[in-house]
Amino acid sequence: MNTAASVQLTPDGRLRHLLTTEGLPAEMIRHILDTADQFVSVSEREVKKVPLLRGKSIFNVFFENSTRTRTTFEIAAKRLSADVINLNVGASSTSKGETLLDTVWNLQAMDADMFVVRHSQSGAPHLIARHVKPGVAVINAGDGRHAHPTQGLLDMYTIRHYKRDFSQLTVAIVGDVLHSRVARSQIHALKTLGVPDLRVIGPRTLVPTDVEAMGVTVHNDMREGLRGCDVVIMLRLQNERMNGALLPSAGEFFKCYGLTTEKLAHAKPDAIVMHPGPMNRGVEIDSPVADGRQSVILPQVTFGIAVRMAVMSMLGSV
Amino acid sequence: MNTAASVQLTPDGRLRHLLTTEGLPAEMIRHILDTADQFVSVSEREVKKVPLLRGKSIFNVFFENSTRTRTTFEIAAKRLSADVINLNVGASSTSKGETLLDTVWNLQAMDADMFVVRHSQSGAPHLIARHVKPGVAVINAGDGRHAHPTQGLLDMYTIRHYKRDFSQLTVAIVGDVLHSRVARSQIHALKTLGVPDLRVIGPRTLVPTDVEAMGVTVHNDMREGLRGCDVVIMLRLQNERMNGALLPSAGEFFKCYGLTTEKLAHAKPDAIVMHPGPMNRGVEIDSPVADGRQSVILPQVTFGIAVRMAVMSMLGSV
Amino acid sequence: MNTAASVQLTPDGRLRHLLTTEGLPAEMIRHILDTADQFVSVSEREVKKVPLLRGKSIFNVFFENSTRTRTTFEIAAKRLSADVINLNVGASSTSKGETLLDTVWNLQAMDADMFVVRHSQSGAPHLIARHVKPGVAVINAGDGRHAHPTQGLLDMYTIRHYKRDFSQLTVAIVGDVLHSRVARSQIHALKTLGVPDLRVIGPRTLVPTDVEAMGVTVHNDMREGLRGCDVVIMLRLQNERMNGALLPSAGEFFKCYGLTTEKLAHAKPDAIVMHPGPMNRGVEIDSPVADGRQSVILPQVTFGIAVRMAVMSMLGSV
Repeated sequence: MNTAASVQLTPDGRLRHLLTTEGLPAEMIRHILDTADQFVSVSEREVKKVPLLRGKSIFNVFFENSTRTRTTFEIAAKRLSADVINLNVGASSTSKGETLLDTVWNLQAMDADMFVVRHSQSGAPHLIARHVKPGVAVINAGDGRHAHPTQGLLDMYTIRHYKRDFSQLTVAIVGDVLHSRVARSQIHALKTLGVPDLRVIGPRTLVPTDVEAMGVTVHNDMREGLRGCDVVIMLRLQNERMNGALLPSAGEFFKCYGLTTEKLAHAKPDAIVMHPGPMNRGVEIDSPVADGRQSVILPQVTFGIAVRMAVMSMLGSV
Repeated sequence: MNTAASVQLTPDGRLRHLLTTEGLPAEMIRHILDTADQFVSVSEREVKKVPLLRGKSIFNVFFENSTRTRTTFEIAAKRLSADVINLNVGASSTSKGETLLDTVWNLQAMDADMFVVRHSQSGAPHLIARHVKPGVAVINAGDGRHAHPTQGLLDMYTIRHYKRDFSQLTVAIVGDVLHSRVARSQIHALKTLGVPDLRVIGPRTLVPTDVEAMGVTVHNDMREGLRGCDVVIMLRLQNERMNGALLPSAGEFFKCYGLTTEKLAHAKPDAIVMHPGPMNRGVEIDSPVADGRQSVILPQVTFGIAVRMAVMSMLGSV
Repeated sequence: MNTAASVQLTPDGRLRHLLTTEGLPAEMIRHILDTADQFVSVSEREVKKVPLLRGKSIFNVFFENSTRTRTTFEIAAKRLSADVINLNVGASSTSKGETLLDTVWNLQAMDADMFVVRHSQSGAPHLIARHVKPGVAVINAGDGRHAHPTQGLLDMYTIRHYKRDFSQLTVAIVGDVLHSRVARSQIHALKTLGVPDLRVIGPRTLVPTDVEAMGVTVHNDMREGLRGCDVVIMLRLQNERMNGALLPSAGEFFKCYGLTTEKLAHAKPDAIVMHPGPMNRGVEIDSPVADGRQSVILPQVTFGIAVRMAVMSMLGSV
């Protein structure tokens, strides 16, 4: 089979690309998190650089604009001493499938070592991964509604950092699960790592109908869903969803699914609160929670750099 | 007090941020200019780099676009061997105050060491400086009509280079003083350094009513104002001001306040002519003057890199 | 005379700028190609960097946007360890000639060592080259319809790589020759290197009337023009030309001048097929040819990095 899951590993089980957390073995996830441990300390040093990828050419190829995500990969690559080239490729030049590959083949001919790809269409990084030559690696930096694996992995790093053992956890993912590649990447990783009680919380219109087949339970009542949780993961509500057909209004959403101090009290007292950012304060999360003692939202960002350094360093030495 | 002037110095008087020239002590200004002296020679070397900020992450966060200013900071940072990340943050994502801070906190969580901030709203860099954690420095690269301190300091460097002693000088600042953060930064620094005769020249509509309280004299007649000057600083006329309510027309402005050879003859024969760039030739300055022997406009640019290297190196070692 | 050809060489015949292949002596072209040979191997190494331009500041000044071309120069400069600054200068700020020079003088005052200039107006890089100070070099990265010399040189590198001896070759350039700076740069270089049979193929409306004066023969029938060719160079059809006054339609163009397997069969069996990219598949070239065994389109890209490194390293040591 030529699935993303199979393409991203070498026959002997090393990381070849990073396209999705789906099918990524538990030992590989743990290996990435262990590698990231070392890079957390690098970022705390006076000179925040290691020469692991010196002379390598890493291309941030963003078919969909995202300054924030691009920045995290750019920093990670620079701290590994790689040369980074940023490319914002307009959607116009990629309306045809073959043009996408021409763009990539062209960059590959410039002796690229790694592509970090963001694309509005699900599967684009996978398509690229199947067509690059040996030695060139692809990292999915978010594709359509499909996957955002480095976000999923940094979330695993964060949970492990604060909670240690996945096998005892109750985790809830809250909000617009339907459109969220982040949620999808989290669910696959959390299941693989053995989380026994995984829940999604959201309005019927924003929870995919087949999500229970992934081994999660669905809650439409947030207080009920949060009861006994160790980890509460809020999702970002996309601006274009607000006031759309699936949602009455941002205010209404906040009332039912915005994380407030009162709602959070239904989770365990030591529950951590996560969010992939950027936050819509007052929509999916209330400021006292976002800035409160249970919030680990900014540590997520810090760990995200380390996790991306880990993935890049592993791919750069295949 | 929590003013920009107080926030930018440590309790023991070292530079903590650079937000404004207002309240910056004379000895600190001189220390910055002395430090810049060393960097002027670095830029003349075969290898124009020193390893002072190696491994540091400097973020150019431009909420208002300015390719030119961004470039000067980018070069300065690269010559100090820092890693530079450029971010053009659309005005849209910063309509709320807290979102500005979320953006900054997010970047800070990526282990940023320094923020170079440009913002259309006066006070934004100061707000950021009050909320970053210890060890993270903020440089104001221009905020609203408030301040542009590195421009003010490079102007001081230029004047000192050509005129040595501030205590004997007559200096005129000419043009749209009302809207100019550059003028404001110059006036504060020139007064602090002891310039005894400081003048602003411009039409009544473009000179702030309270400027005399800053210790300057106002002239509406340019020839009169230039009489006996050692230093003539022209301001850029913003395109959006021309043909607006405050000004009859660019041609009319040039006739009254454009610096021509004839008008310049009213200043001292060895007066220097300065301009922060980019110039509107034929509006605020005539080409024979801009390119003439008294013009030090291009040396200003060169000194600007050295001054920014000085500020960055001082902030990077706090 | 103050032509581009004369400005780009020092009195003792070394490369001072690279503005055009017109008038570039054969020995200089060969010297550039020989130098590029060394850099091809650099790009194949584990650490793809040499310290030749360490501490040099190279400015990519693009008055006309071209992500692709900018990227090739950026990579070349980074592999030479230079500091690279990318500047997309809006057309608006350069409507007057003197403003163009002010922009350049300003960057020069920041101690730039090299400018890579792209401009929609023919002659802009030449104008800049005549006004920079000693030690500052200019590379033309494409100006109007005039020249694109690094593209021309990488094409010479590619032809030499596959065909060795220019003096026995039959070469055809196919398509919109009229608007092509690439074709112009190729023709000058090919004539200088002694290609005895040089042809252009295209519709009457897209072949300049004076092209025969450059020593080429014109063919309006593609099959006839391809007969016996060793090298077939396809040109990109600009989107804005398609369906315009000079052309019936993209489909019609493909029928007459699109390179298909059938048409290519009229050339020699070992003919190579070149294209400067990006390709319009199904317009000027058919996919089976673009991806076929005679295509050297991707090697062109690889050689292009080496050629640009060669030119930059030669200019950086003048």
